[in-house]
Amino acid sequence: MTSNPSILMPDPEVPAIRMRRHFDAPIDAVFAAHADPAVFGNWIGPDRLTNTIDLWDFRTGGAWRFHQEDVDGNRFEFFGSFHEIRQNELIVQTFTFIGFPDGVALERLVFTPLGADRCQLETMSLTNSFEDRDAMLASGMESGVIEGYRKLDTLLRGLTSG
Amino acid sequence: MTSNPSILMPDPEVPAIRMRRHFDAPIDAVFAAHADPAVFGNWIGPDRLTNTIDLWDFRTGGAWRFHQEDVDGNRFEFFGSFHEIRQNELIVQTFTFIGFPDGVALERLVFTPLGADRCQLETMSLTNSFEDRDAMLASGMESGVIEGYRKLDTLLRGLTSG
Repeated sequence: MTSNPSILMPDPEVPAIRMRRHFDAPIDAVFAAHADPAVFGNWIGPDRLTNTIDLWDFRTGGAWRFHQEDVDGNRFEFFGSFHEIRQNELIVQTFTFIGFPDGVALERLVFTPLGADRCQLETMSLTNSFEDRDAMLASGMESGVIEGYRKLDTLLRGLTSG
Repeated sequence: MTSNPSILMPDPEVPAIRMRRHFDAPIDAVFAAHADPAVFGNWIGPDRLTNTIDLWDFRTGGAWRFHQEDVDGNRFEFFGSFHEIRQNELIVQTFTFIGFPDGVALERLVFTPLGADRCQLETMSLTNSFEDRDAMLASGMESGVIEGYRKLDTLLRGLTSG
């Protein structure tokens, strides 16, 4: 079975990365996979890393923190705050990768239903400069995004076929 | 006595507004005026509005919310989250004006000492689009910023001359 393709696009005008992707699952399930740390930790990021959620307060004004590890014990840490949450509709959050000093992105995730059994996710990651944006794109971000959403597809198939 | 001038600059490359300003007060006092809601509420915004702080959790991962009212009872509400706080050095926060639907800015405030008794504040407000950025500038933001920092100058003179 093939996955839906990921589409990672540098914005032509502002220092942002845009993504649009369809999921063959109801919007509730896709939103819940972003809201519930137990589910989120099972799909976010590349295949070779395992996630540990260190803080997860999923609400407007909340915050999050997690880290990833590879089999050699290399550790990658991320944190941010949840600016605004609208159930099944919108997540606006900040994002810092601690290994990239002072880098902060403003992320906007927009969920749109496509009938009852499919939905669309559009994301925008806005950075302070085109230099930071291009460094993020060059860091191998796309393969992590593609692999992460493939894991999410698999999880969603399990949920909807169960 | 004249105030130091405000310098509000649209960034030429990204949809951001930049500001740089000196204060004739130690960095601790200027940072505290951003950290302490009792002080912050006494200077932020234009002269004609009074502030009420509704939520203030000033820490990395915290959140804030306040509203302003004029003498006619018109109300303006703002909220955001504190992405990262570094004492006397850095505040990274999100900012939404509720009357401007879905508008979110990522704000970065950098505090730099200029000797023992002066300091510099540099701010960057990053928005999603040049259209949003220019709408913010056209909204009368600059007069509010100038008046706010004049009130802060007065408060700081009281603190340092007392």
